[in-house]
Amino acid sequence: MKIYSSSVAPNPRRVRIFLAEKGIQVPFDDVDITKAVNRQPEFRRNINPLGEVPVLELDDGTHIAESVAICRYFEESHPHPPLFGTGAVERAVVEMWNRRMEFHLLLPVAQTFRNTSDFFKGRIPQVAEYGEVCRNAAEKSYEWMNEELAGRRFIAGDRFTIADITALCAVDFGRVSKIRIKPEHRNLARWREEVSSRPSAKA
Amino acid sequence: MKIYSSSVAPNPRRVRIFLAEKGIQVPFDDVDITKAVNRQPEFRRNINPLGEVPVLELDDGTHIAESVAICRYFEESHPHPPLFGTGAVERAVVEMWNRRMEFHLLLPVAQTFRNTSDFFKGRIPQVAEYGEVCRNAAEKSYEWMNEELAGRRFIAGDRFTIADITALCAVDFGRVSKIRIKPEHRNLARWREEVSSRPSAKA
Repeated sequence: MKIYSSSVAPNPRRVRIFLAEKGIQVPFDDVDITKAVNRQPEFRRNINPLGEVPVLELDDGTHIAESVAICRYFEESHPHPPLFGTGAVERAVVEMWNRRMEFHLLLPVAQTFRNTSDFFKGRIPQVAEYGEVCRNAAEKSYEWMNEELAGRRFIAGDRFTIADITALCAVDFGRVSKIRIKPEHRNLARWREEVSSRPSAKA
Repeated sequence: MKIYSSSVAPNPRRVRIFLAEKGIQVPFDDVDITKAVNRQPEFRRNINPLGEVPVLELDDGTHIAESVAICRYFEESHPHPPLFGTGAVERAVVEMWNRRMEFHLLLPVAQTFRNTSDFFKGRIPQVAEYGEVCRNAAEKSYEWMNEELAGRRFIAGDRFTIADITALCAVDFGRVSKIRIKPEHRNLARWREEVSSRPSAKA
């Protein structure tokens, strides 16, 4: 078993933090995305047709792509501590919050970077104007999450879950595009400080 | 229990098809999204701060937003037939395919509509150029899925899953923006014909 990964991208970090929280060790095979190794025909043919990392390779050769699919695999094999919630309602609430953090934080943060950074220049069709739409959307989400976190300790409730991992990776990746937690976002800053102080955040 | 929904949007349809496949009946409360009822302060305050449908309201007043979170709730309470897979590996594979269908089919199809349709004019900041980037991305995904489906009956393998529901809702919604399955996409057309002929597709 191993995980094709990248030390510089936000999605592989989600999986690393998840595994660190579970206390699971899996070898990582770092793919040089700066040289677009993941976009080459060989990687697409043998590992992931979409040319993305992370990808979990099981011992029988099965490839599981998509960060959350990889995390779910390990949640099934190592249920403790539960990071997707327990019971039908809590699992649905965690799924809701993880998706909200994906679609309203990580996606606009990542799309700002994709559409405005030099890194993606010439690699994908960039639309700078759309990058700014995404920057505004991300900043609005920070406002909203600051209000949400007035009432609770973690993103999905009083327990650390995969939704905190997604949100932390989004907020940290936002800084590359100068999307930052503002001084008045005290609840969001308090949350970020707490989740960043967990040993897993260094993974 | 009830579901705030819309008869014209693709995400509520995902939940309706899922429930039909499970044989579960839940009352639907149709929200008039053409009049932006879901964007009003009252809806945001009481039901979903993000102003989106569908939202499941449980009898204790808990609100579960996000289509897949709602589906997962019912998968837990009504496990048969399994639509998220069974066992750690299959569940991860289904999660992977459902996410691929979300990020590489439904998202570009929806973003084409959001950025190019009259419906969203004046409601959101539209970037027509980005809409065309998304149209191209969706068309590329159709090519790719046509190749994938040469080797199997359904999106995630030999069993109908939530990934088929997501893909069907994406492909059908694409037609609104003139994104269509081409005559040469025989595998994709064969798959669409089969999943469309299931009674659940009319839900």
